[in-house]
Amino acid sequence: MALIVQKFGGTSVGTVERIEQVAEKVKKFREAGDDLVVVLSAMSGETNRLIDLAKQISDQPVPRELDVIVSTGEQVTIALLAMALMKRGIPAVSYTGNQVRILTDSAHNKARILQIDDQKIRADIKAGRVVVVAGFQGVDEHGNITTLGRGGSDTTGVALAAALKADECQIYTDVDGVYTTDPRVVSQAQRLDKITFEEMLEMASLGSKVLQIRAVEFAGKYNVPLRVLHSFQEGPGTLITIDEEESMEQPIISGIAFNRDEAKLTIRGVPDTPGVAFKILGPISAANIEVDMIVQNVSHDNTTDFTFTVHRNDYDKAHKVLDKTAEELNAREVVGDTNIAKVSIVGVGMRSHAGVASRMFEALAKESINIQMISTSEIKVSVVIEEKYLELAVRALHTAFELDAPTRQGE
Amino acid sequence: MALIVQKFGGTSVGTVERIEQVAEKVKKFREAGDDLVVVLSAMSGETNRLIDLAKQISDQPVPRELDVIVSTGEQVTIALLAMALMKRGIPAVSYTGNQVRILTDSAHNKARILQIDDQKIRADIKAGRVVVVAGFQGVDEHGNITTLGRGGSDTTGVALAAALKADECQIYTDVDGVYTTDPRVVSQAQRLDKITFEEMLEMASLGSKVLQIRAVEFAGKYNVPLRVLHSFQEGPGTLITIDEEESMEQPIISGIAFNRDEAKLTIRGVPDTPGVAFKILGPISAANIEVDMIVQNVSHDNTTDFTFTVHRNDYDKAHKVLDKTAEELNAREVVGDTNIAKVSIVGVGMRSHAGVASRMFEALAKESINIQMISTSEIKVSVVIEEKYLELAVRALHTAFELDAPTRQGE
Repeated sequence: MALIVQKFGGTSVGTVERIEQVAEKVKKFREAGDDLVVVLSAMSGETNRLIDLAKQISDQPVPRELDVIVSTGEQVTIALLAMALMKRGIPAVSYTGNQVRILTDSAHNKARILQIDDQKIRADIKAGRVVVVAGFQGVDEHGNITTLGRGGSDTTGVALAAALKADECQIYTDVDGVYTTDPRVVSQAQRLDKITFEEMLEMASLGSKVLQIRAVEFAGKYNVPLRVLHSFQEGPGTLITIDEEESMEQPIISGIAFNRDEAKLTIRGVPDTPGVAFKILGPISAANIEVDMIVQNVSHDNTTDFTFTVHRNDYDKAHKVLDKTAEELNAREVVGDTNIAKVSIVGVGMRSHAGVASRMFEALAKESINIQMISTSEIKVSVVIEEKYLELAVRALHTAFELDAPTRQGE
Repeated sequence: MALIVQKFGGTSVGTVERIEQVAEKVKKFREAGDDLVVVLSAMSGETNRLIDLAKQISDQPVPRELDVIVSTGEQVTIALLAMALMKRGIPAVSYTGNQVRILTDSAHNKARILQIDDQKIRADIKAGRVVVVAGFQGVDEHGNITTLGRGGSDTTGVALAAALKADECQIYTDVDGVYTTDPRVVSQAQRLDKITFEEMLEMASLGSKVLQIRAVEFAGKYNVPLRVLHSFQEGPGTLITIDEEESMEQPIISGIAFNRDEAKLTIRGVPDTPGVAFKILGPISAANIEVDMIVQNVSHDNTTDFTFTVHRNDYDKAHKVLDKTAEELNAREVVGDTNIAKVSIVGVGMRSHAGVASRMFEALAKESINIQMISTSEIKVSVVIEEKYLELAVRALHTAFELDAPTRQGE
């Protein structure tokens, strides 16, 4: 008999029929003897409808009042699910963030959870009730309703699991787990049974949008076993957990992530003096543009080239800022490229294996794919290549690191 | 500088445009120097939409969970109005029933207010803020969300006015006040400047559906001056207050109420013995049928006739119950009539004036209208007549009691 926190997103509770399906799923776990806390999002589309309503009053809705409005979305779904459970003879009770009490700071629209009162929930579980909790919302010390920001329901689920010391936090989604890479690009992509928090963070931030990054960080920090599952299909999903290094057979690389959202900017011939990096990136940061990869080559003739990537939407803005900087620094020129893609190999296994990067470069070289930028971390190697080679690169790496599904390996 | 509680119903906040109009009205009062607490209903139609959603899960939604769902309707409107006020430079804050804290009993869907914490609201008023409160909802001692039942927002308004000792509770509606009778029946009907709580109760229960009866009772009990006004037209409305008997000029009759919703049932030739009234009405009451007027004539030949009225919707059901009773009591027959109407004259002035009833009967006799039943209370006389004479009777009484608008009196 385990204590499980289950989180269902907006699509999973998007209609009354789907809420009934969720109730059936919860019932199955309950009948198997598990204690359950269920966290729900608003019905899909509802949060946007409520935000639109607020924007009809004001382009910049007062954050405190916006939270009062949007928090009603989850309040409706939790009560509907509690009803659907009771209809099935399963005692249940719904709680808003305020009722639980999920205490947050007062940063409306993007609040952070400070503390969860587990007393009520524990009493309900003891009394045999399934507890249905509104995701995404909380209350500050003054009793004001707060929300955690988009996707915050994942965070609510993990935080509740941490507070209750649950055996597992299950995140139900529209995919049946985390894959070695995007199955639309590589048909031999495989569902991973297990992945570490660190790997998941690298995969998520690199474009595998299965889980909210913040929730993964939270789960890692409190060591909450997290499982990604499909809402309406059976299957073991993918367990995200700490790296226990239990298996010698652990693959070196867990997955291939990629991203087409970036653009590259290079400022050429800047004087190679201390502080020049700050002089270049300071104005970019001041313009609220986020920078991803940064590469600076060794200098020649006392000047250097400086390259970084930004989100494609920020390319024009960043280019303008950089033009101004180039003038001030007396740099030779600014060049940019939006036809790029980033490909990364991710895996805690590479920590103990030399030669992972060179194996990656070899695989790309075999396909005559030119590498424009390289950046590495402890558990990942990322390269920037020309966008048109993206699929080819991902497939080549997937094969090179022996990630292709076994059943198809003989093909 | 007065403290005013203003309550706006669902139609007044039915669209974003209307909420903006309400904000303009509140702004005007604020700029005139008044302190304001505004109570809102849900957008018209929203409560029904939410109930429908719950009924898709269960025909008999769990009352606690239904309250969690329907209470979201007001939560949206209060935040929208608070935003609309702040957009106009007027500091404002919204509170749910739980946030205020409006403490109720635990009778979900029909809770009664036990206590209102006025601390937060007073502090906000002192700080110059307009306080916008969700009507219709509260919270029980365990933190469960409760609702007061349909029309409960009027009650919230009055209860807040009582707790804050407000100078006036203004109820904004789609009529500009309480009239001497229905203007659709009598074109000379006049808006009353003033009416007593008792008169209003008689008018309301007799078919002038301007205010929730419960709210009027509440206002009377705590002596909260209540004013009925039109949401989007200027005008003084009608003040509902205690009978101060300050004016000798007070009219004997304040208004003519009427009702076509009733049906009449007579059981003839029942033995006139003690307890027979209970034997007849006991089974009716046990069948959950509400009885309005009851008349028993003096007996002859040791038998009597017993007549009462019920809502027309209950007529068939009541007839069947009565048939069975007639058999048991060995009564002569049961007869019924659905083509009836009730007309009442209402006014605290009649207490001190003899002959009011006879003046009423004279006016009806002049028009050759036969009176089928009569029932009286301290401040009202009701008669049942054939339905087709209803308009004629109301017009005749309106003229007889000098209620016709002065400008038209010469016509």
